[in-house]
Amino acid sequence: MQKNGTTRTLHTVKDAEGAVTSRVRRTVLPSGLRIVTEQMAGTRSASIGVWVNVGSRDETPALHGCSHFLEHLLFKGTPERTAMEISVALDAVGGEFNAFTTKEYTVFHARVLDEDLAVAVDVLGDMVTASTITEADVEAERDVILDEIAMHDDDPDDVVHNLFAHQAWGDTPLGRPIAGTEASITAMTRGQIHRFYRRHYTPGNMVVSVAGNVDHASVVRQVKQAFARQGFLDGESTPTAPAQAEKARKVHPGQARTVRPQEQVNLVLGVKGLTRTDPRRYALGVLNTALGGGTSSRMFQEVRELRGLAYSVYSFASHHADAGVVGVSVGCLPGKYDAVVETVRAELAKVAADGLTEEEVERGKGQLKGGLLLGLEDSGSRMSRLGKAELVYDELLTIDEVVRRIEGVTHDDVKTLAHELFSQPELLAVVGPEKKTKKKK
Amino acid sequence: MQKNGTTRTLHTVKDAEGAVTSRVRRTVLPSGLRIVTEQMAGTRSASIGVWVNVGSRDETPALHGCSHFLEHLLFKGTPERTAMEISVALDAVGGEFNAFTTKEYTVFHARVLDEDLAVAVDVLGDMVTASTITEADVEAERDVILDEIAMHDDDPDDVVHNLFAHQAWGDTPLGRPIAGTEASITAMTRGQIHRFYRRHYTPGNMVVSVAGNVDHASVVRQVKQAFARQGFLDGESTPTAPAQAEKARKVHPGQARTVRPQEQVNLVLGVKGLTRTDPRRYALGVLNTALGGGTSSRMFQEVRELRGLAYSVYSFASHHADAGVVGVSVGCLPGKYDAVVETVRAELAKVAADGLTEEEVERGKGQLKGGLLLGLEDSGSRMSRLGKAELVYDELLTIDEVVRRIEGVTHDDVKTLAHELFSQPELLAVVGPEKKTKKKK
Repeated sequence: MQKNGTTRTLHTVKDAEGAVTSRVRRTVLPSGLRIVTEQMAGTRSASIGVWVNVGSRDETPALHGCSHFLEHLLFKGTPERTAMEISVALDAVGGEFNAFTTKEYTVFHARVLDEDLAVAVDVLGDMVTASTITEADVEAERDVILDEIAMHDDDPDDVVHNLFAHQAWGDTPLGRPIAGTEASITAMTRGQIHRFYRRHYTPGNMVVSVAGNVDHASVVRQVKQAFARQGFLDGESTPTAPAQAEKARKVHPGQARTVRPQEQVNLVLGVKGLTRTDPRRYALGVLNTALGGGTSSRMFQEVRELRGLAYSVYSFASHHADAGVVGVSVGCLPGKYDAVVETVRAELAKVAADGLTEEEVERGKGQLKGGLLLGLEDSGSRMSRLGKAELVYDELLTIDEVVRRIEGVTHDDVKTLAHELFSQPELLAVVGPEKKTKKKK
Repeated sequence: MQKNGTTRTLHTVKDAEGAVTSRVRRTVLPSGLRIVTEQMAGTRSASIGVWVNVGSRDETPALHGCSHFLEHLLFKGTPERTAMEISVALDAVGGEFNAFTTKEYTVFHARVLDEDLAVAVDVLGDMVTASTITEADVEAERDVILDEIAMHDDDPDDVVHNLFAHQAWGDTPLGRPIAGTEASITAMTRGQIHRFYRRHYTPGNMVVSVAGNVDHASVVRQVKQAFARQGFLDGESTPTAPAQAEKARKVHPGQARTVRPQEQVNLVLGVKGLTRTDPRRYALGVLNTALGGGTSSRMFQEVRELRGLAYSVYSFASHHADAGVVGVSVGCLPGKYDAVVETVRAELAKVAADGLTEEEVERGKGQLKGGLLLGLEDSGSRMSRLGKAELVYDELLTIDEVVRRIEGVTHDDVKTLAHELFSQPELLAVVGPEKKTKKKK
């Protein structure tokens, strides 16, 4: 069976009547390519994602933005299909079809009716294994990327979150924006991009995840055919293990400001957080939810509901293999800036000193569980859960196990964590107009 | 049965084995409140929306922004619940809970696990019928709205689309931004808002739509209880008929420009379109899809794929009761502006002269049908379909009938329509930096 790889059933979930509502199976091909599927009862769609273990943090300064540039270029053509033919294949069946690049992985994904899954597998396999990447494509797409960077530069929210990451990790791969800069994109050559492609787009670095009305064996057959192009599956290798670390790397406390002529001031205030696999991430989930995860959260109530200081206010926790940040993001009128910062700091100090109330802990758990269960109806969410589990967690928990871990969070877990996190020195990124004086139009 | 209103089954859909996969039922209460539900097989969630027949186009200049202000205020409390208690009720069960205001209607909606639907109905009924709207709430929320307006003013896409609407319909209710202006929001009094609430939030002006794992009779019972507050259901009335018009109202051709210090230029170029109930809307759907609805569309291919002129380019068709616009939206670097406008105009002229190819028509139909079918798995999309059909179309088509109408679009229908639309004088809205010269950083 080595020729066909090894296949295992990871989970089987049944309903009260004993009917199977979900079955997760995983195959590792000899080449190292992993295929994970979840067969869902009661759906007529299928979502597929090709998850590649490469992102902006794998880039040297000269290659800054290369992962994202490459993600664009894979849509430009293969020996079998022009860019137009790639687009046509999935547009014609009404499928949703897109891709995104993060700091740690790149994902190409589609959602189609179950009967069209074979088309989606074939197009994605073709794109990912056999992209031509011509000089002309690189030149045309370079302009598109430069425009995309300009678009992000016009979005205050993107600007402030990029500034916050830069404050946290400085001029390192994690601290830099995913899309690169005008300078790095302008200088990048076809040769550099192509070598990057060959180095990172290997079977062992890739996971195909599929969820919906699908049959594991057929998906494996389809993937083996679609990804066999250019001898892609010929060699033997073992899958790349996810990068993991127990401790989050240091962040640089302090303030960063960018002056931009805009109506609002946008700010992100935060501290060092947890790594992706830190066992305390469930407690952090509860804490983050109670702090700024909904309209009943402390930040929403204090900043918006009671004081009318801002329209948009929320907290976030972002995780990387060996790093993480936790923070609060607000956009407000310049005249409210001081009051916003004061309120956010006061709330963080309060939670650092006293933790949450029992009621908040329970509500936070309910909110996390409800969101998790509501997400299960969407084949796209399930596909993402599989892909991420395989590529970056190396462990796929059952939903019941996730629920158990959420339930297991105690009042004291949250209190201890809140104290540890929010006693750390703060990072603050601010983007807004020149002066903080009240503006009268 | 008059006391209980009248109930009808509108559609029943069965699968190949004869099992009911969807059943749509409608009850009109004596007060004029309509309740439409769709029972979906194979789902554990329920989506509910309260659709109110009021939006920014119902506002006099002095009340500009009142519908949206009111939408915010309904979250602030009732005799039974504080703002915090409203938030807690749905956050605690992990439900998604929000609202939005358009030019023609206001919607309060939630998505919850089926077992939590009664909570959602009760909270929404309480908010909508019994909002207190205190002076203090109005003052705090005024600041939030002013901040929201500032946020929109910082978003180039919002700015250019508002400018386009203003160019089309001038200083009329349809031409004005939904959220109002700093001046109108600052001047609005609690008395004005409260009168607006009492005038428009009447049973005959409202539809409750629910889709998911639901039972019509229980939903009706829950709604009757939740909406009976303050004697809301006591009177008798007939539901307000949707406003409809055959001909789209005039638009003002010409150009509008706003200078803003930004990296990109954002532009919307379009013409007068169709009203919401124009029978040619299916042909327009196919045309819009082929023109700029996906990556295989003409605009995407010509502007982005072949020429690398822009990252974001798409076409749109927006419909109102008696008005509509069709256009293309692009964001590009200032140095590409002339080439973008030239390319967009050339493509519109081409389609006006020759229509689409047979292949494009077929692909457009496939894309529309696929999107429609993929949307059916989501209880939220089904809830929206019901709510809109009842409130603004006065007709709920079965999915089969919608598919039939899409299938029925011919090459000639599209050609005739494209010619009629794109031979009209154009409207152009442009937002960007002072000079159109090439920028070098």
